[in-house]
Amino acid sequence: MLRCTFFLMCLLHLKHTILGAVTPKPILINGTYINPELGNYHARLRSIARSCLEIKEKHGGTQDGMYILTTESGTYYQAFCDMNTAGGGWTLVASVHENNIKGKCSVGDRWSSQQGNDLNLPEGDGAWANTATFGSAESSTSDDYKNPGYYDISAQDVSVWHIPNDEQLRNWTSSAILRYHTESRFLREHGGNLYHLFKKYPVRFGAGQCKSDTGAVSPVVYDTGDKDSTAKLYGPSAGKDFESGFITFRVFNADRAAMAMCSGVKPTECNPQTRQQCGDFTGLDLSGTASKQLTESSVLLFYR
Amino acid sequence: MLRCTFFLMCLLHLKHTILGAVTPKPILINGTYINPELGNYHARLRSIARSCLEIKEKHGGTQDGMYILTTESGTYYQAFCDMNTAGGGWTLVASVHENNIKGKCSVGDRWSSQQGNDLNLPEGDGAWANTATFGSAESSTSDDYKNPGYYDISAQDVSVWHIPNDEQLRNWTSSAILRYHTESRFLREHGGNLYHLFKKYPVRFGAGQCKSDTGAVSPVVYDTGDKDSTAKLYGPSAGKDFESGFITFRVFNADRAAMAMCSGVKPTECNPQTRQQCGDFTGLDLSGTASKQLTESSVLLFYR
Amino acid sequence: MLRCTFFLMCLLHLKHTILGAVTPKPILINGTYINPELGNYHARLRSIARSCLEIKEKHGGTQDGMYILTTESGTYYQAFCDMNTAGGGWTLVASVHENNIKGKCSVGDRWSSQQGNDLNLPEGDGAWANTATFGSAESSTSDDYKNPGYYDISAQDVSVWHIPNDEQLRNWTSSAILRYHTESRFLREHGGNLYHLFKKYPVRFGAGQCKSDTGAVSPVVYDTGDKDSTAKLYGPSAGKDFESGFITFRVFNADRAAMAMCSGVKPTECNPQTRQQCGDFTGLDLSGTASKQLTESSVLLFYR
Repeated sequence: MLRCTFFLMCLLHLKHTILGAVTPKPILINGTYINPELGNYHARLRSIARSCLEIKEKHGGTQDGMYILTTESGTYYQAFCDMNTAGGGWTLVASVHENNIKGKCSVGDRWSSQQGNDLNLPEGDGAWANTATFGSAESSTSDDYKNPGYYDISAQDVSVWHIPNDEQLRNWTSSAILRYHTESRFLREHGGNLYHLFKKYPVRFGAGQCKSDTGAVSPVVYDTGDKDSTAKLYGPSAGKDFESGFITFRVFNADRAAMAMCSGVKPTECNPQTRQQCGDFTGLDLSGTASKQLTESSVLLFYR
Repeated sequence: MLRCTFFLMCLLHLKHTILGAVTPKPILINGTYINPELGNYHARLRSIARSCLEIKEKHGGTQDGMYILTTESGTYYQAFCDMNTAGGGWTLVASVHENNIKGKCSVGDRWSSQQGNDLNLPEGDGAWANTATFGSAESSTSDDYKNPGYYDISAQDVSVWHIPNDEQLRNWTSSAILRYHTESRFLREHGGNLYHLFKKYPVRFGAGQCKSDTGAVSPVVYDTGDKDSTAKLYGPSAGKDFESGFITFRVFNADRAAMAMCSGVKPTECNPQTRQQCGDFTGLDLSGTASKQLTESSVLLFYR
Repeated sequence: MLRCTFFLMCLLHLKHTILGAVTPKPILINGTYINPELGNYHARLRSIARSCLEIKEKHGGTQDGMYILTTESGTYYQAFCDMNTAGGGWTLVASVHENNIKGKCSVGDRWSSQQGNDLNLPEGDGAWANTATFGSAESSTSDDYKNPGYYDISAQDVSVWHIPNDEQLRNWTSSAILRYHTESRFLREHGGNLYHLFKKYPVRFGAGQCKSDTGAVSPVVYDTGDKDSTAKLYGPSAGKDFESGFITFRVFNADRAAMAMCSGVKPTECNPQTRQQCGDFTGLDLSGTASKQLTESSVLLFYR
């Protein structure tokens, strides 16, 4: 009887050709998947959830890797989960990839696109504060990336990985030049994610003043590197104007140009920036002295 | 016995870790999904179909929201279904999002892309008449959107929603500034969808004359707003040259520049357009007097 | 008992509305799928694999069409499989679509993007040697296309189809103007795919010399057309400098500009190219004399 029921259970998939498919076909033999890849897929489906934290807490996910998530509205998407750093449950929701540090604001840059951050075109395409999505997890060190989790997940903290450009997913942890996360739960005060934070603090030229109108600042805890290695990567000139060991969102310089984030540092002075400003990530080369290692890396953003 | 069979049935998913997955693991307890999100996913999968109309008619779908569709060739994609307006069964297949009305034809505009609609570059990238796809349903008020349904679904009518830019899916119905649909079944004469309509009537500079070579016109029935509110949104100057209460596809102006659609209106005069023309959607600001409310909204296109 | 067990088995999907979904609902009646599209989907899922060759060899796939693949890291994607040409098992991993032969290097060209191939911007965005992905199989004759298989599949040979732009998937085989494949297993010496080949032989201005630094050359076997029809399509001038019946990857001209591939030919002379060079595919119009038929077609790349 047991054997028979198993056999019947297995008749879940099709006989004959795809186009003539109307009857099911076995997927198990003796309780084992005939196709182990289907087993892997079913395992991922079984833990489908709104975030990696939920997968960890409700469904016991413990391995770093790709999982299947859903938005509140029922859009399904694949995401990378870091299940181990500082307790795990981190969802990769975005990356900023600069293929050419001089090409900031260049065409193809999905975060600030064709509209720069000057007086005439004060606002970018607004990707920081809208629901547009682009790229994919496996491509996130080669291309800009933003998945639905960016606006859909309700989170408390962020984690940031600086990974050399074009590094493949399986090497991310070992090749990271900097990894750090917040523990301040600062996102709770800003709507639970960066989408809501940037709705509140738009990345728009002239929308505020240096220092007094900074969006959010949080200290970070290091997972790879430390305050000193961060300072070294940003270069000697940055040291005068920035303090490492923090992450800062929506920053104005003395010229009232807005940056989306200064990752790894917080500004301490309001000197005019001589470098071209660009609405998303000038933080990468704040004073024009950042190391090649830093400017040729992608910045991966996680929520928890 | 019943309990036992249920238990066996449930062994559909994996034991142990993902990578070692070869044996199934329960997904139900006492006939109920252990993970309700998996239940939601299976419900969506159960009604997989070629269009929202088919989901409504064959599988009894009655709720607005995300469903899973397939093309004739077996490409699966997620789409938003409006299951309630005027009988329901409407599939969202595309949106036109202009982040900057002055930036028409700007880079990043997927409908007409880098090639404008003038004598030297008479034809755009042709997205109106090809199978390229871009964007996603949840992003369709923040980014251009076109899914496989645009060319794959065989339809009779269109429905159009004008939604303020960046509005989230759950607020679309309540925040719409205009919603209307055709009941003339005009698509039956043009191959069953806009892909075939634009193959027949290309959006190409000089391919025809004002009025005599208009592609298709249909009266519309309003679901939000009316003829008067449409006229008001397009502004006072539009009133002389356009009549509201219609939707028009492939329109030439007196200079022989082509527009893909005039949404909500049909042209009545052939005055030269003084505004820059752009191959897709100049209809949004026909006379340079359209309201900010209209020009800063996205146009969502549905088929039924 | 049998009938009863079948009935229980079928309770895999939901009762009631999607949002209240917690209990399963039948998917079979008398052993047949209630929704045949779900049957088709389950059939595709059953053969999930790393490549079309694996689907053919392990799961008996014999029909051309869309299948579901997975990367090593567990990213799922849909791909087109050619299961019949020369034994079958070919995975479509990429396409190069030029909407305007004069627009080479134009914005929107995902293979070489905004950075040309001259002295000042020697390197393109690097899509040939990174994990960025874009486009979709059904759009591959209307838009640039690159799926995860490009870097994830371990292959030996390539197959190339030249298909008129905008041709729909169901007509590809019948409308192809040229189809050919290698049998030399040349990819084994270059890391098993083009991703690794181009890591080894970067498409960068000045990275090598004409002839001596060519990346890889292989003779091809024709499936549609032959050496003569290839030569005719490339035009009379090409005949002096190129020999048909080959495929060549990473080619330098006399000016040290790099091309990603010369598809269908190998260069025999090192005359300076008078045509503008562009980092990906100038091979399409090597001497400015190629036929309109060739320059207005897309190049589809398969692995096996």
